[in-house]
Amino acid sequence: MGRAAVDFWYEFASTYSYPAAMVVEERAKIYEVDLNWRPFLLGPIFKDQGWDDSPFNIYPAKGRYMWRDLERICETRALPFRKPDRFPQNGLLGARVALSLEGRDRMMFTRALFTSQFAHGRDIGEEQVVADAIAAAGCDPAATFERALSTPNRKALRDATDEARHRGIFGAPSFIVGGQELFWGHDRMEDAFIWAAAMNEGL
Amino acid sequence: MGRAAVDFWYEFASTYSYPAAMVVEERAKIYEVDLNWRPFLLGPIFKDQGWDDSPFNIYPAKGRYMWRDLERICETRALPFRKPDRFPQNGLLGARVALSLEGRDRMMFTRALFTSQFAHGRDIGEEQVVADAIAAAGCDPAATFERALSTPNRKALRDATDEARHRGIFGAPSFIVGGQELFWGHDRMEDAFIWAAAMNEGL
Repeated sequence: MGRAAVDFWYEFASTYSYPAAMVVEERAKIYEVDLNWRPFLLGPIFKDQGWDDSPFNIYPAKGRYMWRDLERICETRALPFRKPDRFPQNGLLGARVALSLEGRDRMMFTRALFTSQFAHGRDIGEEQVVADAIAAAGCDPAATFERALSTPNRKALRDATDEARHRGIFGAPSFIVGGQELFWGHDRMEDAFIWAAAMNEGL
Repeated sequence: MGRAAVDFWYEFASTYSYPAAMVVEERAKIYEVDLNWRPFLLGPIFKDQGWDDSPFNIYPAKGRYMWRDLERICETRALPFRKPDRFPQNGLLGARVALSLEGRDRMMFTRALFTSQFAHGRDIGEEQVVADAIAAAGCDPAATFERALSTPNRKALRDATDEARHRGIFGAPSFIVGGQELFWGHDRMEDAFIWAAAMNEGL
């Protein structure tokens, strides 16, 4: 049996996915756990639950809390934060691009795009903003867009979203340990890595 | 200006309020922060959000996750756990009793009633179960019920629930630090005490 890895499931429109994306690689190194970056779309899963908007907009008290909480988390983690004018934003193109990239490129692009949205307040629904994040990750925007928008890659994103649903994911970020144990939320990231480390030590 | 205290807002029907109630006093002692036990009713606040059942029943994926997560949390904290047959249970009588008790009596009763529900799987909607928890806290059930069911105490519980709503509370457990900073969820308890300790050190 191989070592238990952590699958990090994230959605670009998800606010709490931002601080998670910025620190998850460091946590994986500290706990010596393999990490898989898994972009997906939360929209179709929210639709299953009868929502056609973010729950943070549908439930205002929850939304007010979330923005204050995100501000606090970013301050604690020394991450820049600027509330974007529009929320939620359209993360479809970003998710397609992320999925079309591999390894370190995917990680670098993901962090760059989250930074655009939540540190610089840019709109990731705009192609230019996505192109800038591709370039920031050291990749070629034109070639990347071509792969990202290809039929197989579009299908791969739908498959990833279906997989998330079947694994019981209902929010982002989510962490799945050893292909099995689900932890939901930025504030449970540490628990996921502790679980993975314990599995790998045979505890 | 006095020292910042932590207000611990809990609801007896709330699953995550159970582990919080069992460890919150210890956290307050460790961080040397004053703690106020604030029972309230989440039902009226959920009704404002259009829910007439627990979100863990309305959204099954979220519910499945919650039960597994609660089991894990209890295991980690060495708390006994048994999933009750009925969920959510009617916590009205329990909340009235908790509010009618003061200081250590309120804490002891609260922990006893949560233990009945989530460690022994009993139904706290039954008067006898509440009476047993009152006795376990060293109080007299008959005299306590009389105070708990009095008109002023019923009104005090409605007022507490209104206060929770006005303070932006939308779930339980919630922690309010220094009458101002809201933290939602069992998994943010530690953050609430860190915030309180920092306020008290003038950081």
